[in-house]
Amino acid sequence: MGHFLKNYADFQPGLSIDCVIISYHEKKIKVLLNKFNYADKWMLPGGFVRKDEDIDVAAHRILKERTGIANAYLMQFHCFGKANRTNMEENMDILSDTGLLSDEHLCFFASRFISVGYFALIKYDDVKIERREKDIYYWCNLDKIPPIYTDHKDIIEKAINTIRLFIDYLPIGYRLLPEKFILSDLRAIYDSILPQPVDKRNFQKKMLSSGLIERLDEKKLVGTYPQPYYYVFNKERIKSFNV
Amino acid sequence: MGHFLKNYADFQPGLSIDCVIISYHEKKIKVLLNKFNYADKWMLPGGFVRKDEDIDVAAHRILKERTGIANAYLMQFHCFGKANRTNMEENMDILSDTGLLSDEHLCFFASRFISVGYFALIKYDDVKIERREKDIYYWCNLDKIPPIYTDHKDIIEKAINTIRLFIDYLPIGYRLLPEKFILSDLRAIYDSILPQPVDKRNFQKKMLSSGLIERLDEKKLVGTYPQPYYYVFNKERIKSFNV
Repeated sequence: MGHFLKNYADFQPGLSIDCVIISYHEKKIKVLLNKFNYADKWMLPGGFVRKDEDIDVAAHRILKERTGIANAYLMQFHCFGKANRTNMEENMDILSDTGLLSDEHLCFFASRFISVGYFALIKYDDVKIERREKDIYYWCNLDKIPPIYTDHKDIIEKAINTIRLFIDYLPIGYRLLPEKFILSDLRAIYDSILPQPVDKRNFQKKMLSSGLIERLDEKKLVGTYPQPYYYVFNKERIKSFNV
Repeated sequence: MGHFLKNYADFQPGLSIDCVIISYHEKKIKVLLNKFNYADKWMLPGGFVRKDEDIDVAAHRILKERTGIANAYLMQFHCFGKANRTNMEENMDILSDTGLLSDEHLCFFASRFISVGYFALIKYDDVKIERREKDIYYWCNLDKIPPIYTDHKDIIEKAINTIRLFIDYLPIGYRLLPEKFILSDLRAIYDSILPQPVDKRNFQKKMLSSGLIERLDEKKLVGTYPQPYYYVFNKERIKSFNV
């Protein structure tokens, strides 16, 4: 963003990208928020699209620039285009916080933006969020989103609802769990994302019959009995989803 | 569009909307194409977004202005944003065909556009496509799309793929069939949209267990036996989808 602010003329006017980065840690679904460049406002990691850049490419570049996260499987899920979604006063506050108040910055920011939303599910332990320039980061519990920039709460909700809608198709846990996992850990993720807990008795049968996961002939050695089997995702099936 | 071209300054730069209007007629899935204002190029009915207008509102206005279709259940499905999707030469040809070659028109059109795609499923017989100004219309068979403007073929394909993905959730036939219908007509729609024919033996069971349709205690009086039952969509279930 710092970089962007010096070269606003290279970017598409009125178009932004916001990334909903979702992870799972200590039995909670987390979403990544940041404050950029000293501005005192939580927001989703986001940015703008270069005039010669595909929006999908821009989404990956922005996520990398803002957070250091590379190679996430970003999926576009919705375009946010309410006429009043850009709050000019809020933008002014942010520009003021960051000390960027030239006429050119004002001209770029003081207009209506539509934003294309992307989400990605990533493993908590795999990702080291890098501190970038003057940005700070926060893995926020999904049920405790703080006051946040413009419609970013709606964007998060829409991302979660999209995941819920696709939950029977998407290998939801694939990017969130270690390679081999026990069923109760997978179920805990579904429970965190869905509005109601999943039906415990049918969960194994449903997941196995979906073809998304397979049971290994190996049990996790824990103190309690019966010891639970390990499972893995079916990589052939996963490939066809590209998530 | 004619109207728009006189007031380009009221519209968001670089942002368009395209509508994929899908119907079912004589056992074929149809998609609505048009040529606007004497321009010799098939395209999806589309247009631009006013600066003070929500994109969802714009989609309905555009569809009404271009085709006369009101109250369609438009669903936003994807934002198309490849950097090279706008073909400047093609745009010049269209401006040339329409005789709109002022500097202001050139300036508005000779830039990159991203387009937000919406689809709607509508009953063929319910809709009288109105001839608007100098536009012409064509209900095109899905498997016979003619050479078409920019990436509009990709937009149509993405709409169909989205419908396929959601087919177990969406009441696909609801907007395409009469209020009471026989199962083979519903199945024919699924067969037209899906890449493979549906499993004939399981179709009834699957549809009934989805809760989307209900069987009436009434048979269609046709010459062949057994005479088929009529079915209706479950309106309570349909409501929750808003399609």
